Amino acid sequence: MTANILDGHAHAQIVVDQVASELDRLPRAPGLAVVLVGCDPASQIYVQSKVRMAERLGLRGEVERLPDDASEADLLARIEALNARDDIDGILVQLPLPAHVDALRVMAAVDPAKDVDGLHALNAGRLFHGDDALVPCTPLGCLRLIKSIRPDLTGAHAVVIGSSNIVGKPMAALLLQEQATVTQTHIHTRGISRICRQADILVSAVGKAGLVRGDWIKPQAIVIDVGTTRVKKPDGGYTVCGDVSFDEAVQIAGAITPVPRGVGPMTIACLMENTVKAAKARAARLQ
Amino acid sequence: MTANILDGHAHAQIVVDQVASELDRLPRAPGLAVVLVGCDPASQIYVQSKVRMAERLGLRGEVERLPDDASEADLLARIEALNARDDIDGILVQLPLPAHVDALRVMAAVDPAKDVDGLHALNAGRLFHGDDALVPCTPLGCLRLIKSIRPDLTGAHAVVIGSSNIVGKPMAALLLQEQATVTQTHIHTRGISRICRQADILVSAVGKAGLVRGDWIKPQAIVIDVGTTRVKKPDGGYTVCGDVSFDEAVQIAGAITPVPRGVGPMTIACLMENTVKAAKARAARLQ
Repeated sequence: MTANILDGHAHAQIVVDQVASELDRLPRAPGLAVVLVGCDPASQIYVQSKVRMAERLGLRGEVERLPDDASEADLLARIEALNARDDIDGILVQLPLPAHVDALRVMAAVDPAKDVDGLHALNAGRLFHGDDALVPCTPLGCLRLIKSIRPDLTGAHAVVIGSSNIVGKPMAALLLQEQATVTQTHIHTRGISRICRQADILVSAVGKAGLVRGDWIKPQAIVIDVGTTRVKKPDGGYTVCGDVSFDEAVQIAGAITPVPRGVGPMTIACLMENTVKAAKARAARLQ
Repeated sequence: MTANILDGHAHAQIVVDQVASELDRLPRAPGLAVVLVGCDPASQIYVQSKVRMAERLGLRGEVERLPDDASEADLLARIEALNARDDIDGILVQLPLPAHVDALRVMAAVDPAKDVDGLHALNAGRLFHGDDALVPCTPLGCLRLIKSIRPDLTGAHAVVIGSSNIVGKPMAALLLQEQATVTQTHIHTRGISRICRQADILVSAVGKAGLVRGDWIKPQAIVIDVGTTRVKKPDGGYTVCGDVSFDEAVQIAGAITPVPRGVGPMTIACLMENTVKAAKARAARLQ
């Protein structure tokens, strides 16, 4: 028996349809501003796809471009201006930022009510406390995929590989909110295969191609693969690989996300959801 | 062989001595204000012991008393006044609050720079992100006890029983910052004894007397007992019991805290430490 393959595009469409259906109830189209510093080609593609998706749904999307050598003060001033604009509901600063900019200070400058990436400490703290918050899009998307298979996670043992602020930690916090038992692992974890074999839900977010082998997986587990690593093919081209050895894992798991077309489409759909959530909360507050 | 008994009073004295030695470098004595609503006898005792400890160390301690039926608006106004006072460095709202008061709104009203209980979402988020923060005193005290036995926690497996915002979750976050692998368990966890037996470090914070049995404990583990439950004795009096079956656990563990005289004294010592930390940060900012 092989696992149920979780189709990220199909699940993302459900989120996107839900988002579109909520726009009618808002006084105006929600506005999403993406701040892009420099001209990293990958970042340019990400930013474009976010703005294009926003516009396809009927949101207003715009890109604030700054040159590679923009000063931190310039960037902070631009964020301040976006904070002050009434027609902007969501602000996303595309990462990575140039080394001369203090990313922590930049994240702290975004109005928490517009922080659709969920990276402001106030939103992180609300998530940590189990209160309503804007939550990072990738773990939010992963949770939706997990719950599509297992709506009630009470008492399930979840293991998260990776403890970044943008995926690993918020993923663990969301699973804990769902009353799962949660083990957070990382590069210093000893005996990781034994720990993973206990997982009813296994999420890997480290960016190490093929790390998770078939024998790390508990039979019928839900396996979510956030990793994307560019790997050179024999013909000289590149392919994108996940953290999970898919061909092995698919024989053991109950459900699994492929890479690509698994978690990726959910991240951008959840960004749209967060933007509409922020717009609704702001509209309610202004009434 | 029996476990090393971690003497909370002795370890608290180390913290307190360190705090006292830092006072000379401050422009004035740090001020701690404890807000007490109503006249719950246990709360009164806690508040008194905090203020007395502050004064013994050379801090300024004061109690803001409000009646049981004080409105939320009254309480918020009182906190606002303390936020504005330059001579107050730490504000602690004694819990529990009366049911007619929204504790979440009250916590959010305390200036994060004076939030010596570490309960403001901004401090929780900073802790979650691994940044410098004011951290709740009890888990901070537990971490010190753990590190007195094992200074480097890298790769250790820690299991935390309980996931409250004031102990269980910040405890897990602190252990994760120390590069431990962390499992957070709670009332919905299945197979908890099996999970606990994997723990190099076991922290229990649920308030269920005798929950953790000897056979839940990995040989030589560090066991930290945060629970305090009042239990009736045969003679009609009361005694305070921890979450851990001490007589069993002491035979297996490498180190263990007793109840009482384990974690308790550390909590109040760490409150003093947080107050001085807040005072130093405020003094540096005002320079």
